[in-house]
Amino acid sequence: MTDLFSYNKITAEIAEEIRKKIGANNVSTDEEKLESYSHDEVPQSNYGRKYIAELLVFPESTQHVSEIMKIAHDERIPVTPRGAGTGLSSGALPVFGGIVMSFEKMNRIIELDEDNLTITVEPGVVTAEISRMASRHDLLYAGDPCSGDASFIGGNIAENAGGNKVIKYGATGAQLLALEAVLADGSVTWFGGKRRKDVTGLDFVHLMAGSEGILAVITKAVLKLLPLPRHSVDLLAAFPDARSAINFVPRIVTEGGLIPASVEFMDDKALKLVEKYLNASVPAGDAGAALIIQLEGNDEERLEEQFEAIGKLSQRHGAYEVYVADTRSTKERIWQARKGVPEALSAFYSRYTKEDLVVPTASVPKLLEMLRGETEPYGLEYITYGHAGDGNMHCTIVCPECDNWHDRLHAAQQRIYAKLIKMGGTLSGEHGIGYKRRGYMKFFLDDAQIELIKRVKLAFDPQNILNPGKLVDWGK
Amino acid sequence: MTDLFSYNKITAEIAEEIRKKIGANNVSTDEEKLESYSHDEVPQSNYGRKYIAELLVFPESTQHVSEIMKIAHDERIPVTPRGAGTGLSSGALPVFGGIVMSFEKMNRIIELDEDNLTITVEPGVVTAEISRMASRHDLLYAGDPCSGDASFIGGNIAENAGGNKVIKYGATGAQLLALEAVLADGSVTWFGGKRRKDVTGLDFVHLMAGSEGILAVITKAVLKLLPLPRHSVDLLAAFPDARSAINFVPRIVTEGGLIPASVEFMDDKALKLVEKYLNASVPAGDAGAALIIQLEGNDEERLEEQFEAIGKLSQRHGAYEVYVADTRSTKERIWQARKGVPEALSAFYSRYTKEDLVVPTASVPKLLEMLRGETEPYGLEYITYGHAGDGNMHCTIVCPECDNWHDRLHAAQQRIYAKLIKMGGTLSGEHGIGYKRRGYMKFFLDDAQIELIKRVKLAFDPQNILNPGKLVDWGK
Repeated sequence: MTDLFSYNKITAEIAEEIRKKIGANNVSTDEEKLESYSHDEVPQSNYGRKYIAELLVFPESTQHVSEIMKIAHDERIPVTPRGAGTGLSSGALPVFGGIVMSFEKMNRIIELDEDNLTITVEPGVVTAEISRMASRHDLLYAGDPCSGDASFIGGNIAENAGGNKVIKYGATGAQLLALEAVLADGSVTWFGGKRRKDVTGLDFVHLMAGSEGILAVITKAVLKLLPLPRHSVDLLAAFPDARSAINFVPRIVTEGGLIPASVEFMDDKALKLVEKYLNASVPAGDAGAALIIQLEGNDEERLEEQFEAIGKLSQRHGAYEVYVADTRSTKERIWQARKGVPEALSAFYSRYTKEDLVVPTASVPKLLEMLRGETEPYGLEYITYGHAGDGNMHCTIVCPECDNWHDRLHAAQQRIYAKLIKMGGTLSGEHGIGYKRRGYMKFFLDDAQIELIKRVKLAFDPQNILNPGKLVDWGK
Repeated sequence: MTDLFSYNKITAEIAEEIRKKIGANNVSTDEEKLESYSHDEVPQSNYGRKYIAELLVFPESTQHVSEIMKIAHDERIPVTPRGAGTGLSSGALPVFGGIVMSFEKMNRIIELDEDNLTITVEPGVVTAEISRMASRHDLLYAGDPCSGDASFIGGNIAENAGGNKVIKYGATGAQLLALEAVLADGSVTWFGGKRRKDVTGLDFVHLMAGSEGILAVITKAVLKLLPLPRHSVDLLAAFPDARSAINFVPRIVTEGGLIPASVEFMDDKALKLVEKYLNASVPAGDAGAALIIQLEGNDEERLEEQFEAIGKLSQRHGAYEVYVADTRSTKERIWQARKGVPEALSAFYSRYTKEDLVVPTASVPKLLEMLRGETEPYGLEYITYGHAGDGNMHCTIVCPECDNWHDRLHAAQQRIYAKLIKMGGTLSGEHGIGYKRRGYMKFFLDDAQIELIKRVKLAFDPQNILNPGKLVDWGK
């Protein structure tokens, strides 16, 4: 077998051929532009060097994508599909150069089908636009990543983005009915259809969710819609400490008997950091920890009963104050705190690593205890926030004054991951593996499964040209 | 490449080796037994000849499965995993002989985890037992295939079984959190975990759902549970004809604004057939068509409002009578009619083919019209029932007095499938492709996708020993 990672460079002739196929205005070799498409939102301190593409392409249609892939396949050139660049795992870095394929010009909402409750979109549509379009028709698109105001739906699918409503509706993958995909050799095919059930073939629709662009290129998606819940209420419960807040989370379902749309967590450090960043007080800003609980329903009275019951239940379990938000402005105030955490982190720290640990929901208290135990000995600090309702915590490790940052971090990570595995947890819940975490995959998946991932990748892409080097450790 | 379908026979030595590994009491070559494991519930008239295994094995553990697979892999012997034999696509037929692996001895419920809302089971557990165990803990297992009183959960997963509650909860695949799997070479691995989110690797959990035993052998499954809805009500609405019943279905969501747990349909012929079979009248037995609508909720009063609203809405859309069932006995009476249809069909017809057509939900009325148009010219009759809420209709084609049954049937199927594709429909919603429908796959999936399915199958199973010859047409 020839080296899977030996690629050809893009010659002037190849670039010219691509310009001819998709139009010169959809191709760029501008250095500044190449530079700005060379990273996502992982701080560069995580991987040191820059990975610059040779050519940027901005296809306007499935046909364009197919033409580009045919050329890349014939010439053996790597292609890295790219959404809005909001990724958190260096998944869109063109590690082997070649082509970066940006979807910003494929940004049309093609159809909203009220009879079948579906919306068909191109991959470059900003996720929040899908939600807004749906809600104008009294419908809900249930995918809700925190990056939704910026990220593209194509990237959400490639990463199987989670977000705030996974506990009730599932992650992005659960919203998918069908995908149009361009295969590595340029063939165009449809996985699934506008159908609520389908066993005609293998389920490639859901295999594509979270496949990080290594299998095929998404060119259209058909997403499920639901009737829009008529009312929603957000509670913010302030607890004296992280432990009591986290211990309360499973009670919402087991004692409260209902599935909220969201249960979000912030520890004291996250609350204080966001207050500092916003330069304003936030609700429960001085709490030891806070939970945001969102409830939805069609019956206002019933919803009121529910949030009162959950509020009382939280107080029985240690909450000392409960804020209720049922207007747009009070809700925004509550969510501003939660959604501001990532920005606050990158504003105040140039060097940090955001973990995306996920454990069985009932093990979140144990996870937080473990994190303390495994970071303190290395003199590291951590800020924890995230999706407590589904067990996915974004523990962000920082150490502004540390020398030997990478050594300390890697030593702590190895211990954290070893304990994580013992509690049934894993490496990433929603941010993905990409290039950032590939070296740790061997701790979480056995050799047989890692080999299987590689074989399936090469079954889709025998030339290994689609986003090569990602998801598992290829020794490169 | 050597012929993918050239296998070795099981010699006395190989059989002895297997007996040693898993115990002689777990191996059988009894002819009557081999005969009874040679078919599922597809009438034999559909494929003519019998496919008999050389050896039956009844593993009691993952270890046993692994040992058997290692031997089969080394000796190049086909292995057909088998659940309860309730399949409807000849998926468990040992088409190339070899080993049939029955899971009837791996039938333990391993754990019900109330804190994480999961249940962990072996593949041979009868699906209804899972539901009963969950409900004893006030929890719901939301998978609900019509065969649930007999079928095994392993078979449900392999077929991505649908059933009565897909409209609200999704099919079996949507209930999966994790699978323990034995790969073709005998390696044991876990896909997923007891986690609500997981992007650590490719999503092989959902790829396994509906993969018909061609990728790997399922040895354990972790399934999601939900809080059990405290109340449920079933409505049976009698309509003058199929068209008015079917036209009403999408209104439940779009005008009624709620997602029922089930919407089931029976045409006049299905109702009469089941009355004849039960030798008793059924509710709406003389209707032109009937819908069963199941609503669930925690608040009895609110549920009452809902079913009254849906009842009135149905009457505005042509229902002339609405039965409400809210006790166990009245509910059973309603569901007895629906669940009795498959048995009634096989009692009265020795020659029939049950289609599993699925279309976008709003296209069900067009589907029924089309079926009439494409069967009548061939002198064929059809009986239609199924899951109207998710667009999946079990149209069963019969013709008791016909000569040239196969010719007429195939001619009608070709025309039905061509029109089905035009309306965005596909070949199978929940029964699977198996051996029965493989020849029709080329109408529904393009060559690129069929090749991809084959390459992914061989990425999992390079020796092609796991349930060979199924899902797509391999030219064998």
